[in-house]
Amino acid sequence: MSSPLVISIDAMGGDHGVPIAVAGAELSLQRSAGREVRFLLHGDEARIGPELARRAALRAVSDVRHTEHVITAAEKPALALRRGKGSSLWNCVESVKRGEAAAAVSGGNTGALMAISKLLLRMAGGLERPAAVASWPTLRGVTAVLDVGANIESDAAQLLEFAVMGAAFHCAVHGQPGRRATVGLLNVGSEEQKGHEEVREAHRLLREATLELDYKGFVEGNDIAVGTVDVVVTDGFTGNAVLKTGEGMARFFTATLRETLTSSLMAKAGALVASDALREMRARLDPSSVNGGPLLGLNGTVVKSHGGADAKGYANAISMAADLAASNYAARMSADMERLSNALNTLRHPHAAAQPAPAGVPS
Amino acid sequence: MSSPLVISIDAMGGDHGVPIAVAGAELSLQRSAGREVRFLLHGDEARIGPELARRAALRAVSDVRHTEHVITAAEKPALALRRGKGSSLWNCVESVKRGEAAAAVSGGNTGALMAISKLLLRMAGGLERPAAVASWPTLRGVTAVLDVGANIESDAAQLLEFAVMGAAFHCAVHGQPGRRATVGLLNVGSEEQKGHEEVREAHRLLREATLELDYKGFVEGNDIAVGTVDVVVTDGFTGNAVLKTGEGMARFFTATLRETLTSSLMAKAGALVASDALREMRARLDPSSVNGGPLLGLNGTVVKSHGGADAKGYANAISMAADLAASNYAARMSADMERLSNALNTLRHPHAAAQPAPAGVPS
Repeated sequence: MSSPLVISIDAMGGDHGVPIAVAGAELSLQRSAGREVRFLLHGDEARIGPELARRAALRAVSDVRHTEHVITAAEKPALALRRGKGSSLWNCVESVKRGEAAAAVSGGNTGALMAISKLLLRMAGGLERPAAVASWPTLRGVTAVLDVGANIESDAAQLLEFAVMGAAFHCAVHGQPGRRATVGLLNVGSEEQKGHEEVREAHRLLREATLELDYKGFVEGNDIAVGTVDVVVTDGFTGNAVLKTGEGMARFFTATLRETLTSSLMAKAGALVASDALREMRARLDPSSVNGGPLLGLNGTVVKSHGGADAKGYANAISMAADLAASNYAARMSADMERLSNALNTLRHPHAAAQPAPAGVPS
Repeated sequence: MSSPLVISIDAMGGDHGVPIAVAGAELSLQRSAGREVRFLLHGDEARIGPELARRAALRAVSDVRHTEHVITAAEKPALALRRGKGSSLWNCVESVKRGEAAAAVSGGNTGALMAISKLLLRMAGGLERPAAVASWPTLRGVTAVLDVGANIESDAAQLLEFAVMGAAFHCAVHGQPGRRATVGLLNVGSEEQKGHEEVREAHRLLREATLELDYKGFVEGNDIAVGTVDVVVTDGFTGNAVLKTGEGMARFFTATLRETLTSSLMAKAGALVASDALREMRARLDPSSVNGGPLLGLNGTVVKSHGGADAKGYANAISMAADLAASNYAARMSADMERLSNALNTLRHPHAAAQPAPAGVPS
């Protein structure tokens, strides 16, 4: 490749701050075989400098963008918008807006990251609302579930957008080349007449549309962990509830397993013998174990890393950002949005013919 | 007790039909120490008779109500309402309506059971909509989650009803004497301003109301399996999605555990040593493992048994029905609904003062 892929990193965000962000960048550099990458590290130079000094390879491909201004984890999004300018998070996203970086990664305040990203990058062509996507480990691999909380209520048009964004995301990050993503719409049953109006309307339109995805119809909650489809589409309220339910179940399993394996001498002996395998398994269960939650639908790639992620987790988020930025994900989304534009216009402005056409999509 | 508790059983419902229903009744009779029970068995006498003949103790406390008419599993609820009269399911519920039985149990068509129960028994005082409740095994015991699918969309008034029904149910079936149930409202965050209008309105009213329950505020999906509260209240769409997600996670976990424990010789040896403990654990994980899904809010107790339940599962559903029917659950609900009546009236008819009061609550 002629020019390197530049990743903009909020080095101050996350529970563990600078050391983890820098260690994560180093790890992702070591893993980036065949792809030339560079990093912009936003934050306090006095704290980033010493971390870089010990890492010659990383230092050679990194620029530090100094700021001492940090948005705290507790800051409300509205306040972060007003007071966040010049902070490490703000500058991290602004680098993408200015074209200096291909993607932004932050482990900081989620609401602030969402608000600032929307303000600075704006929505990509045709899309009205961003979506947060989770990469859920399943029996068959990884399923993308969205929206998991960027929106509270979602109408049929938004569900369509989520399908398009989720399919493009899955192909870019988890998919196999040349294979379209299979997409299911979360519902309370698989029959046509099930569910509320929004979900049935979205179902009808997804079935009729010709898109770069393979729509499989309604799926149910149990299909998520089984991995029936590559992408599960739902409103942000339900998506957030199922994601956190999955996290709670993983914790329940782990605790129950621990209890079971310490309940008797025989079980203890068994656990000792099988301990490597059991340790490996625990890491596979939690839907939050795949680190990196992209905000989809923006003009630019933004990935949220878990606040509590370790260096390995942070490196995973950076790799996801790099994969997304290097892919044709954005073009794929906009091509599908183009194909959907008639259907979406009718859906959003059912009486458009009888009255002046509203501005419609925010620019 | 002077008179026995009579349980009405749809002996034809469920995937395994008469043998499982009769075996389940026998098992529940054996477990009913201290409580005098009788059974009405609805279905084909030619098939029930031989099963009873081999069980003297059960036969002594059972009456067979003959019918050959059966509602199939595929029958649509609307058709079941029109054509279901005289079927084993219909007659099973009708026995409760007539006062011949204290509770009805069926493993048959869920939609038909719901529709026929609503038609024959009607809603209990003050309540507008029934709710389906799941008993979810957690780290701390069992949490009641409702609604898990009897309704598709739920407004603030319905969420309040679910809180009242769920608390009364939990105290009757899973609770400790003298302790009020703790109740949480499922949301996407624990802060006051989170979530959509319905959930925030219900939160405000539950916080203000003085009810026979201990309202703990918002909870999130991860709180369910942890067992943070005794009762988790949510709309039927979200409740159905989280319940089925939990079932899928349990399947995922079991499959992963099996795979892990056959992945290497050491793991295999460990599993062999710990096999009893692991087998016991698997049974504890699945939120569908506690059989018996009551339809709450009706004038009478109706419990749905899983279609695929075995005799032990069927007996659990019968025990749950007996516990509910023998409890003061109905009185508790109606007392709380009385306390809520002003709030609910305002919620349902915000402009009632300015116009003739509508009929409001279906009788």
